[in-house]
Amino acid sequence: MTSGTSDPRVLVHEAHHDGSERYIPDGTPALGDVVPVRLRVPAGPGDPGEDGVRVRVVIDGEPEVFPARVDRRTGAETWFVAEVPVHNPVAQYRFFLGPAPADPHAYRWLNGRGVQHRDVPDAADFRLTVAPPAPAWGRGGLVYQVFPDRFARSGRVTETLPAWALPRAWDDPVDGYGRDRARQLYGGDLWGIADHVDHLERLGVEVVYLTPFFPAQSNHRYDATTFDRVDPLLGGDAALADLARTLHARGIRLMGDLTTNHTGVGHEWFAQATAGAAERELYYWDADGQHVGWRGHASLPKLRYASDDVGRRMYAGPESVVARWLRGGGDGLDGWRVDVANMTGRYRDEDAAHAVARAIRATMADVRPDALLVGEHFHDAGADAQGFGWHAVMNYAAFTRPAWSWFAPAEGAPRSLELPGPMPRRGGTVVVDTMREFAAAVPWTVTSAQWNLLASHDTPRLRTIAGSRDVAHVAAALLLTYPGTPVVFAGEEFGLVGRNGEESRTPMPWDRPGDRDEATFAVYRDLVALRRSSRALREGGLRWLVVDDDAIAYVRETRDERVLVLLARAPWRGVDVPDVGLLGSGAPATMYGDRELRVEGSAGGRVLRLPGDGPAVHVWRLA
Amino acid sequence: MTSGTSDPRVLVHEAHHDGSERYIPDGTPALGDVVPVRLRVPAGPGDPGEDGVRVRVVIDGEPEVFPARVDRRTGAETWFVAEVPVHNPVAQYRFFLGPAPADPHAYRWLNGRGVQHRDVPDAADFRLTVAPPAPAWGRGGLVYQVFPDRFARSGRVTETLPAWALPRAWDDPVDGYGRDRARQLYGGDLWGIADHVDHLERLGVEVVYLTPFFPAQSNHRYDATTFDRVDPLLGGDAALADLARTLHARGIRLMGDLTTNHTGVGHEWFAQATAGAAERELYYWDADGQHVGWRGHASLPKLRYASDDVGRRMYAGPESVVARWLRGGGDGLDGWRVDVANMTGRYRDEDAAHAVARAIRATMADVRPDALLVGEHFHDAGADAQGFGWHAVMNYAAFTRPAWSWFAPAEGAPRSLELPGPMPRRGGTVVVDTMREFAAAVPWTVTSAQWNLLASHDTPRLRTIAGSRDVAHVAAALLLTYPGTPVVFAGEEFGLVGRNGEESRTPMPWDRPGDRDEATFAVYRDLVALRRSSRALREGGLRWLVVDDDAIAYVRETRDERVLVLLARAPWRGVDVPDVGLLGSGAPATMYGDRELRVEGSAGGRVLRLPGDGPAVHVWRLA
Repeated sequence: MTSGTSDPRVLVHEAHHDGSERYIPDGTPALGDVVPVRLRVPAGPGDPGEDGVRVRVVIDGEPEVFPARVDRRTGAETWFVAEVPVHNPVAQYRFFLGPAPADPHAYRWLNGRGVQHRDVPDAADFRLTVAPPAPAWGRGGLVYQVFPDRFARSGRVTETLPAWALPRAWDDPVDGYGRDRARQLYGGDLWGIADHVDHLERLGVEVVYLTPFFPAQSNHRYDATTFDRVDPLLGGDAALADLARTLHARGIRLMGDLTTNHTGVGHEWFAQATAGAAERELYYWDADGQHVGWRGHASLPKLRYASDDVGRRMYAGPESVVARWLRGGGDGLDGWRVDVANMTGRYRDEDAAHAVARAIRATMADVRPDALLVGEHFHDAGADAQGFGWHAVMNYAAFTRPAWSWFAPAEGAPRSLELPGPMPRRGGTVVVDTMREFAAAVPWTVTSAQWNLLASHDTPRLRTIAGSRDVAHVAAALLLTYPGTPVVFAGEEFGLVGRNGEESRTPMPWDRPGDRDEATFAVYRDLVALRRSSRALREGGLRWLVVDDDAIAYVRETRDERVLVLLARAPWRGVDVPDVGLLGSGAPATMYGDRELRVEGSAGGRVLRLPGDGPAVHVWRLA
Repeated sequence: MTSGTSDPRVLVHEAHHDGSERYIPDGTPALGDVVPVRLRVPAGPGDPGEDGVRVRVVIDGEPEVFPARVDRRTGAETWFVAEVPVHNPVAQYRFFLGPAPADPHAYRWLNGRGVQHRDVPDAADFRLTVAPPAPAWGRGGLVYQVFPDRFARSGRVTETLPAWALPRAWDDPVDGYGRDRARQLYGGDLWGIADHVDHLERLGVEVVYLTPFFPAQSNHRYDATTFDRVDPLLGGDAALADLARTLHARGIRLMGDLTTNHTGVGHEWFAQATAGAAERELYYWDADGQHVGWRGHASLPKLRYASDDVGRRMYAGPESVVARWLRGGGDGLDGWRVDVANMTGRYRDEDAAHAVARAIRATMADVRPDALLVGEHFHDAGADAQGFGWHAVMNYAAFTRPAWSWFAPAEGAPRSLELPGPMPRRGGTVVVDTMREFAAAVPWTVTSAQWNLLASHDTPRLRTIAGSRDVAHVAAALLLTYPGTPVVFAGEEFGLVGRNGEESRTPMPWDRPGDRDEATFAVYRDLVALRRSSRALREGGLRWLVVDDDAIAYVRETRDERVLVLLARAPWRGVDVPDVGLLGSGAPATMYGDRELRVEGSAGGRVLRLPGDGPAVHVWRLA
């Protein structure tokens, strides 16, 4: 299923709905509210007519069908409105489209995957959730991920190195595969991040997310030995407070990284537990009396949330780990990214994952009402991302993995995460189906806050995945024009390379200009600025317009702006898209890329002539 | 998406796994067990080779990949085996198939929907559940549904009619649409069912399922006024005990129908609740002090399981409603079908549905270890049918609705359930996709006990849906050759008609031979007998072989038998299927239908020549 020879799929005649402002009123519904939801049905052979539309809502576990009425008509479209009762905390709904000339003997459904020509399960139903969304600052702006050991040395840290550390010079190559890879210490620190705040500002960073800063026995610090202080190797508590103040002074937020699933085997809680004290219940123990480690790693004992004491320490009240680091006005964190969130509280027949996430969220809301909580999640997050607990999750399933599979070359791609063999190369048709299917399972309020990424400290670098600078730039354009929160791992903006997560934790080449790809930096900077300049790109709905193996195009739209994004990973044949409610009164404006959008034909029969060049990025404002 | 002109899809080269005995060891795994699961990979362009297969298992919320090794090879296939840890109560797994000549740049997944050429959500993963399956008597044998008021009058009931009842003569036509439709009383009773036990035996019935027999204020009796006794209009407790004894003497089981979601407004519990007593908490009340009715029906007040008292009465201990009717050795029930199971315990932000189902199941297991518990479910039952609580559910989603949409004519079909317009007509390709997708969400141990039906007291009659006797017979053949438990609503075997559930509750035409289609009876009788004679048809796996808009073919298989079923709703072009591990050493034997299966070519290049006649049913034993 790689590039095929079929015609591009043009979806402009498909009925459309999403959770954005053109379709759903602003604000979070309360339980019991009735919400008017809107649907657009383009004129054409798929139009079921005025009486052909209904909305189906699952109420207390059973579907019920409610009417929809015509709200308004344009020449090209009919807009319907239907009242959806938010009878349950997550109201699942889909639209019924009656038979139409193109399909005279069967109704269709419209759900988050698009128009369905058969009955389908509820997983892809649209969703309204009573859970408040992520705070405005945590929706849509650039998050910049820093792995503290590798970002910058300030020269202000003079701690003696611990026994586990193997000191490295800043320009030493990183060993991505060796047994000692977690012991290589490059000596970056938090003061060093503050030193580069101008770089962050130039790039357009809105949030800095730090991987863990607690003392540990590795360079990645996911094996904390305490949650009570910042690692002195990183500059200690003072350096974190200084970093927070420095960033906040520029309007940049700061997030930490908390391992709720496990501690390090050297953690002070684990020492208590192995002393045979009451704290033994903080962890899991197997039949042989050995502690249970995360995925079998003895160095990472798994916390047991069936123990109330774990909750008390981790998230209950203002002295808990979760709360403590968010306090302090300008010198505290603004939120947490939670490591292994999808496994936290899950073990054998216990599943407290959602309860733990909700408890963390509640404590955060108490301490800092606009705090952001994001969970790590490597696969299908549908059931875990309904907006309660974690505001959003790392969007590997609905964004990262399908995007990689579109950009990876047929030969020479790095190894798949967790799977044998290289990353797959797939055509845009199945890639978009994948993105739609995984995204459909979460409410739009979550989708618009999901952490989209193309590289992290756990993955190869984008440049290495894409195999070429040009294709990597197309990928960056996808990241920065897509719904959600774009996350960039430090060094991506310089086009750094790496074949796996360890190798990608490259020390930033601040003193090696030749290793910094300034053209790539310019692409990121320009696309971030474009996103910040356009409410449609940042907050607008998502309507797929063209899907081809080598090109995809989508419309991002708010009430007052309509933007067309066309991305090609390779040359393709191009396609003419009929103007069904796409163009405004003026001519399209080029927002990014080197070509104007050609419009041909006269009103009623106008087409948008999408060019077939590639690799290419085109962004046009239509209205 | 009705009948198309594309070629039939022949799936014989697809890798296959299901939860049946060729692939999974017998018995129910315990938490912590490791289960060897088997996979067959046909030789050909989709074969990823010896090192190309893995199994992915979700462990504590995170996927892990485990090896698979070659178990054995035949000329046509490679069989792999992989060890799946049942670390959680439901182990979700799928197979990884590496790149193959047909797809050299991308891996594939095999899940319950078949081979997937992209990443897919976990919903369709295969599942091993630690929940014990339905008892053997409740898996695969014919269930016969009786609506007591309409089956037979014994003449032994002499009760005075209650005020609500509008007495009808047995041969009066049923009013399916009028305001008084629930008040028409035809006067069938439980003695009357026992009078016709010879008929049941001739048909091959293994279980009789009675819609409610408690006193009520309607002919359907889903609005019980007490759960303490059998309606005297039906003959009272003595008639039920007699019926149970009569059936049990023939080896036939008996199931009741319990409304756990609500009572009638005339129920004795509701009278207590409205008296302002402590029993008020048994029900829900709105802000105006009005009781909450099921789907707004004031006559059906919804039970509130947040009240411990509801559980105590309904299912806690041997004196509970659930337990009481199962006791009594030969004169008690063998199980319950639960009405509106999917809504029971669900209201606004409360969701006790699974807890209630598990509590009911536990009580039943205490009283009668081999009792059967089946839940009503009208739509996507994936999340509700993992084997805990309800052993199985009514399989509207994965069987009934898609089957209807294959058999309904383009013009003149009855109204869709709950939706505007007639039932849709769809092609076999999307119909099979639908069946596979909904079925994939439940463990095979549940699938093999699901209640498949083509008509019930809530639906039009099959003959009316299919529009012709011949097509209805093809539908009956699907029902009776498919995995699960076939359920036949009394009267289907005579080809009765009805446009909706009410109208379909036809009094049985015992005294009107002209209204009984004996040819249809013979089809049912023969197909039921065929199913009873073939362990493959009753318990075997399900492997889709051919999918076409007008024809479908599948293989049912046990360790010692392989049966091919070919169903055509209309004439089609026929197709040659390569013999990839299909044929045994002897010639295929015709089990049903009027044609031998032609095999052409010599060993290595043999094909099975599937004929293109239709409407048609062919069943051949291949090995």
